Amino acid sequence: MSEPTLEQVDQTVKTWLRESRDLVLKRMATPLNVDQKTGRKDLVTNVDKENERLLVSKIRAFSPDSQVLGEEGFGDQVTDTAGWVWVVDPIDGTMNFVKQRDHFAMMIALYIDGQGVLGYIYDVINDALYSGGPSLGVFKNDQPVAQPANVALRDGLVAISGPLVTEDVMNMPEVIRQSAGFRAYGSAGIEFSLMLTGELITYVSYLKPWDFGAGKILAETLGLRVTRVDGTPLSMLSSDFVMVATEKAQQDILPIIG
Amino acid sequence: MSEPTLEQVDQTVKTWLRESRDLVLKRMATPLNVDQKTGRKDLVTNVDKENERLLVSKIRAFSPDSQVLGEEGFGDQVTDTAGWVWVVDPIDGTMNFVKQRDHFAMMIALYIDGQGVLGYIYDVINDALYSGGPSLGVFKNDQPVAQPANVALRDGLVAISGPLVTEDVMNMPEVIRQSAGFRAYGSAGIEFSLMLTGELITYVSYLKPWDFGAGKILAETLGLRVTRVDGTPLSMLSSDFVMVATEKAQQDILPIIG
Repeated sequence: MSEPTLEQVDQTVKTWLRESRDLVLKRMATPLNVDQKTGRKDLVTNVDKENERLLVSKIRAFSPDSQVLGEEGFGDQVTDTAGWVWVVDPIDGTMNFVKQRDHFAMMIALYIDGQGVLGYIYDVINDALYSGGPSLGVFKNDQPVAQPANVALRDGLVAISGPLVTEDVMNMPEVIRQSAGFRAYGSAGIEFSLMLTGELITYVSYLKPWDFGAGKILAETLGLRVTRVDGTPLSMLSSDFVMVATEKAQQDILPIIG
Repeated sequence: MSEPTLEQVDQTVKTWLRESRDLVLKRMATPLNVDQKTGRKDLVTNVDKENERLLVSKIRAFSPDSQVLGEEGFGDQVTDTAGWVWVVDPIDGTMNFVKQRDHFAMMIALYIDGQGVLGYIYDVINDALYSGGPSLGVFKNDQPVAQPANVALRDGLVAISGPLVTEDVMNMPEVIRQSAGFRAYGSAGIEFSLMLTGELITYVSYLKPWDFGAGKILAETLGLRVTRVDGTPLSMLSSDFVMVATEKAQQDILPIIG
């Protein structure tokens, strides 16, 4: 079989995600089985695990020569970025999933030889699927998403993860003071999606590869900056403090964080 | 004409709010006229004003002997709580309205002789109308809302307004550390609505009467505590630091804030 086109891959991934959404909504009708991972604020549920197994199995059947990096460990130990590498977050914002039954996302990214090719963020409860990549453009439920305005820090809303604010890390309270306002949604997927639509103009958090893989591809396609918090390049296999920002907001913030 | 029953008032207010929603959605299709009130983070738009005028006119026609307290000043100077007092917030979360075109609410409260009787929070974009009061119960789009679980601080999500966190007011960072996680949505109406559904277990912010009027009535009907941040009673005509919390979370937080 010849290699599928990106459009074919794109259509296929969307069918997986819609199937996964049906699974998650069905499982939400029965009690969740919640476990701690690294501590009481780092949760995993039976649904995270079942959905990752489902998505990894779809990827392996579709693309057997790929590597898969999954949050819950049902993929591979990925240490090099050659070839096709899929990054899967079956439930991003598990705390919200458990406590709110809302405000969480599924995410899938496809990198080829280290280059971001396709990204997917699925806001499950709102049924809002953000998809695309550099060669396709970005879509929300198959409608094109326009490039967000290049808004300066003082004119836009910023989302920063709680610990960076409460512990006064890298002068984040001053970033907030200079912005138009501070928001925190508790899911990288939700926060990336609000960057895509221009509802946020900066997002800063400590993120793992599955937290930023899809969002980085989509945000960069729309002209947003996705870097380490100091503005240097972000490695797709590293965990790091990540800043997503408009070009102007990035310029405003870098001197503040020193 | 005899005085209307509470059920009649309730049905009438809902028709006003649906008419107001249509107006707001229509106005959102054209550019907003945005002005600052007390500063660059305190905005008002043509839509806030037009919607308040509409709601105040409906109230005056329906209930000419009432006093009306409106955020944008189209009501009365209310200094005593005798008789019927309506409290109107035509767009709560105006910054979100301007920057996100989402995550804002309309709110109406009715107090009779200082007692909260009816409250309404309308999440406009989600078309989710929370309504009710002590004698009717609480409803979301006319479906009964169950009393939220009495969750302790460590097991639930807290929303605290940005300045209280960045300026380390009343030990709020420690409240956040002891919780399951921190969220900030930028609209008292949205945050009260998430308290009603149990998605948040604490909300703390500096609020004005139109910010908490409706939410206090609905939240107290569901057994939540709505007080000054030190746990003392909140006056319906005062601006104050307000804490909305489950009983257990309130007990956990009061010693932290000293």
